[in-house]
Amino acid sequence: MATLGLVEYQDATPEVRAVYEDIMATRQTDYVNNFWKALAHDPLTLKRTWESIKQVMQPGALDALTKEMVYLAVSASNQCGYCIASHTAGARQAGMTDAQFAELMAVVGMANESNRLASGYQVEIDARFLPR
Amino acid sequence: MATLGLVEYQDATPEVRAVYEDIMATRQTDYVNNFWKALAHDPLTLKRTWESIKQVMQPGALDALTKEMVYLAVSASNQCGYCIASHTAGARQAGMTDAQFAELMAVVGMANESNRLASGYQVEIDARFLPR
Amino acid sequence: MATLGLVEYQDATPEVRAVYEDIMATRQTDYVNNFWKALAHDPLTLKRTWESIKQVMQPGALDALTKEMVYLAVSASNQCGYCIASHTAGARQAGMTDAQFAELMAVVGMANESNRLASGYQVEIDARFLPR
Amino acid sequence: MATLGLVEYQDATPEVRAVYEDIMATRQTDYVNNFWKALAHDPLTLKRTWESIKQVMQPGALDALTKEMVYLAVSASNQCGYCIASHTAGARQAGMTDAQFAELMAVVGMANESNRLASGYQVEIDARFLPR
Amino acid sequence: MATLGLVEYQDATPEVRAVYEDIMATRQTDYVNNFWKALAHDPLTLKRTWESIKQVMQPGALDALTKEMVYLAVSASNQCGYCIASHTAGARQAGMTDAQFAELMAVVGMANESNRLASGYQVEIDARFLPR
Amino acid sequence: MATLGLVEYQDATPEVRAVYEDIMATRQTDYVNNFWKALAHDPLTLKRTWESIKQVMQPGALDALTKEMVYLAVSASNQCGYCIASHTAGARQAGMTDAQFAELMAVVGMANESNRLASGYQVEIDARFLPR
Repeated sequence: MATLGLVEYQDATPEVRAVYEDIMATRQTDYVNNFWKALAHDPLTLKRTWESIKQVMQPGALDALTKEMVYLAVSASNQCGYCIASHTAGARQAGMTDAQFAELMAVVGMANESNRLASGYQVEIDARFLPR
Repeated sequence: MATLGLVEYQDATPEVRAVYEDIMATRQTDYVNNFWKALAHDPLTLKRTWESIKQVMQPGALDALTKEMVYLAVSASNQCGYCIASHTAGARQAGMTDAQFAELMAVVGMANESNRLASGYQVEIDARFLPR
Repeated sequence: MATLGLVEYQDATPEVRAVYEDIMATRQTDYVNNFWKALAHDPLTLKRTWESIKQVMQPGALDALTKEMVYLAVSASNQCGYCIASHTAGARQAGMTDAQFAELMAVVGMANESNRLASGYQVEIDARFLPR
Repeated sequence: MATLGLVEYQDATPEVRAVYEDIMATRQTDYVNNFWKALAHDPLTLKRTWESIKQVMQPGALDALTKEMVYLAVSASNQCGYCIASHTAGARQAGMTDAQFAELMAVVGMANESNRLASGYQVEIDARFLPR
Repeated sequence: MATLGLVEYQDATPEVRAVYEDIMATRQTDYVNNFWKALAHDPLTLKRTWESIKQVMQPGALDALTKEMVYLAVSASNQCGYCIASHTAGARQAGMTDAQFAELMAVVGMANESNRLASGYQVEIDARFLPR
Repeated sequence: MATLGLVEYQDATPEVRAVYEDIMATRQTDYVNNFWKALAHDPLTLKRTWESIKQVMQPGALDALTKEMVYLAVSASNQCGYCIASHTAGARQAGMTDAQFAELMAVVGMANESNRLASGYQVEIDARFLPR
């Protein structure tokens, strides 16, 4: 169980319920996952985090699937167990196929390898890559 | 300068030159960036790393631009200076717009925030997110 | 169970027992947690690590509660499961309230987000922030 | 220079100027640091990030100095150059002394050491540390 | 269970079986561990990753035991649960004693501590340490 | 320059000088590198950190070169610029050849890649790898 426990809908204050309802409406589901129920002990953080994620994840210059896959890529790179599990589910719901998942992980793996080779060899940034 | 220095084309052995030529041909450029020139002191690692990246980054279930953006996202998350600079250039060459870059960074930022909230609150993985 | 197992008090050598006793005396408890029992297979590391933590965590320019919360903040940022669990307990014993915990996690989350935005955007350090 | 460059006040749109003005008013300064000028190319992220940081960093259950020090601790742990420089300045402005800085870094160092010892030894979480 | 499940030998395609057989032959064992069975859903990544690890881990300028211990050190530093467990087993099979394990973890711990002290104090690189 | 500046020998208190002298005597050099001069503003941390590193890095079950290479491997994996530079120098002084450096970095790279594949695929730890 989470540090402060989980706040279920029936036990939630009106302001927490309002966030839960917006999560369910936005995601077209009747399920609120544990992450939000754990944050609900701090309604300000719950509301701010949800509104930030809602803004960030809405389709724009990048489509919803790409955003979900980037989220999963960062979570896998950071090795956050909860986040990998929940965003694998999220990316799948947004349409990620097994083949896309596998290619995504291959890129994450190579980026983590070459990041350390670049740092370990102390490679100087090419003049042409410097932002002007 | 890199730990072991950079190997320029004119000083390279035939096996290193062959990799440089494949890099330039594959990327349709006449430029080999410092990362490869630093690795060239270890021809086996140079060749293996290049062939791996070539395989991983070729369009498949994910297109080339998505892969470049994921690479950049992981590098930004890992805070690797060289990699951020070079893959920003790479992603732009693959067509990334400023608006896509900005949305990409917004996702990377939120993922890093929520990864720590999930861990810090010790949120238990929802049963429905567990792989079966 | 830990890689090398846990060394219980009754099975410990006199030098390990002396560390266990100092831990219990310093913390005013009769409990030695698994971390120390796992390290006890390497009495030198056990003793050095305990003495370092005892020195670092004693109240000084920063009070004990602030230090425990910083320890927890770093552990949450690093996503170390054991450390989050044990230092949540430690911070609570030092007086951390639920409200302080929630604000602490909010800061940890934002710092992790803005760290990546700063790196990803390759923001140059302001001249006035450079140490002289 | 930052990837997309910096947006100076005189070149900024009204909505960006409004954020800059709120930053200066809140912090009681006439200076806007590079982080915000780099983000200003994405006014939505600029506004959201500023409002989040303003909310998170305002004194509450934790005072302003403690929050600044936790921010610095996480940035040092993540090894983000820009963030260490800017939040060292921020923490000092909030009153951090050299002695507090030194103790803060000592805690950050020990936490990073013991995090890896706990993980490397595969220490099992003590039953009493598990959240109920 | 892994995201895509595990591919057992009897259910594997000939190309996957060929990799499994090479793993068992190279390691002189009749056991293929879960990591490979999870990757087997992506035969290209399975084959590339195995061939890379086989090349990288073969004795050369560094002997097999040193390489296994470095692998474990990085995994402990990254706090990857699966990797710590499997490479502890691997290093032991290559001859790592309990005393070597303990000293290895002590170095990993100190490196993680001093890395943050160096970053947190913004220590400038000594001229003599700069690669020429 | 470092956050609090560097303490040169001629400006140091007797207790700081004693540490500097022990560093030079132990390392058989007349040079004290910036890391120690930066820490010297906090004599307690200076002394504790030096004595810990001296204890940890002395040859034991692992020889001095192996320990220096593990230190470098962790620093490269963590992407700490100062630490990579100083421990590359340190490992070379302990006898590391270019070929050993290159193989070390290859292992660090692969470990970082496979760490993320294992996490990203949510691979379950094999029963035989669990510590008993």
